[in-house]
Amino acid sequence: MFDNIRVVLSHTTHPGNIGAAARAMKTMGLSRLYLINPRYFPDAQATAMAAGADDILQHAVVCSSIDEALQGVTFTVAMTARLRDISIAVKTPREAMPEVLQQAATQPVALLFGTEMSGLTNEEMGKAQLGVNIPANPEFSSLNIAAAVQVMAYELGVAAQSFAPCVQEIEPATHERIEGLYAHLEKTLFEIGFFTTQNPARLMQRLRRLFSRTRLEDEEINILRGMLTVTTEYNARLKKRYAEEHPDVQ
Amino acid sequence: MFDNIRVVLSHTTHPGNIGAAARAMKTMGLSRLYLINPRYFPDAQATAMAAGADDILQHAVVCSSIDEALQGVTFTVAMTARLRDISIAVKTPREAMPEVLQQAATQPVALLFGTEMSGLTNEEMGKAQLGVNIPANPEFSSLNIAAAVQVMAYELGVAAQSFAPCVQEIEPATHERIEGLYAHLEKTLFEIGFFTTQNPARLMQRLRRLFSRTRLEDEEINILRGMLTVTTEYNARLKKRYAEEHPDVQ
Repeated sequence: MFDNIRVVLSHTTHPGNIGAAARAMKTMGLSRLYLINPRYFPDAQATAMAAGADDILQHAVVCSSIDEALQGVTFTVAMTARLRDISIAVKTPREAMPEVLQQAATQPVALLFGTEMSGLTNEEMGKAQLGVNIPANPEFSSLNIAAAVQVMAYELGVAAQSFAPCVQEIEPATHERIEGLYAHLEKTLFEIGFFTTQNPARLMQRLRRLFSRTRLEDEEINILRGMLTVTTEYNARLKKRYAEEHPDVQ
Repeated sequence: MFDNIRVVLSHTTHPGNIGAAARAMKTMGLSRLYLINPRYFPDAQATAMAAGADDILQHAVVCSSIDEALQGVTFTVAMTARLRDISIAVKTPREAMPEVLQQAATQPVALLFGTEMSGLTNEEMGKAQLGVNIPANPEFSSLNIAAAVQVMAYELGVAAQSFAPCVQEIEPATHERIEGLYAHLEKTLFEIGFFTTQNPARLMQRLRRLFSRTRLEDEEINILRGMLTVTTEYNARLKKRYAEEHPDVQ
């Protein structure tokens, strides 16, 4: 089950934090580390802070984009310092873990951590199905990234001890299939002129939020994309007919 | 309530860990840090890793012995890598927190962390009323000390959100009063010749375990020490009478 859970660190600045995160993972039985454009890696400081978890560093997958790091993933959990978020639902670690384990019982799951200074970007948050906020002191809420990995890994470990998977009835779509849908949707909304009265970025964020709640199935993506294709074609036919009937209008 | 909780780090080797522990504490609203003979402190690395929690470092109390660090404390929780311990009962962080909060509602409480390499000594463990083991990967169970502080502080923070103190009926004795009792007990057992057939260190550990479970009250310590005093006096009287009746025996 834990083999299905990858820890994804985005644009980590300090290599010591990568090593400390690897150690935190290993203490709770997690092993799959993905690094998106780390500033320094591999690095002696990372190895020193790993303190025996260097096998995790050796097998770490270094990626150049978030989409590469989330390839094949069907459920992405994004860490956030905010209690609410425009793009996704936000839970505490303890609330989130049963769902994480349920997903990880059959599918690849990602726990996504942002940079030391500024966390995850809105774009990165938009790739997730669930946000997790570690409850903290409102006047000093910034956990070290490896400490946050430790809390999440610890909560996973505790939750796993009393976890029994339900039979999963849906076949969730992978990250890349969902991103394909969003790209198709955005393109279609542009073509039909929907964005002339709407802020495209904000609207796409709202749509991501909506779909992230539903946990799209693979087959549903086929249906939705079919609808989009037909919409575009219909729109193209309309345009064509309009152009034929009004050859004078450009 | 959190003002009654002190984090005590014993003989910490790496100053960065002290800073990271301070940060972990502050993220969860803890502020009282005690350091027993830290190898380097104050230190620039500690300040760097504190990342804004340097107020906690500035107010840290540096002590030269564990008894000094536990002065006034009525409930000490010792971190242990072992699931069982000869000298005290061991719980998980989650199991332990309601009791920690209950004690901290009215009395000073200590969370005691050992060194990076070897944890707490048996002597240090013997000063505690409760052991706490963070459940971990049996093949790699060694959490970084600041990561362990983060897990404990996090569990405290979560537990505090749903905590309502019970009315406490007992008046627990302080650390130094309890140590006074043990010293008196050990001295008395020597005097009455009890240790001639027993291993003193091991027996005292068993007695500490017994009394740590009962949470001794101040008044009870008076009673017990009164009994010890009378025992010694009785023993002295017996010896004296024996010497008088048998002047030929030395």
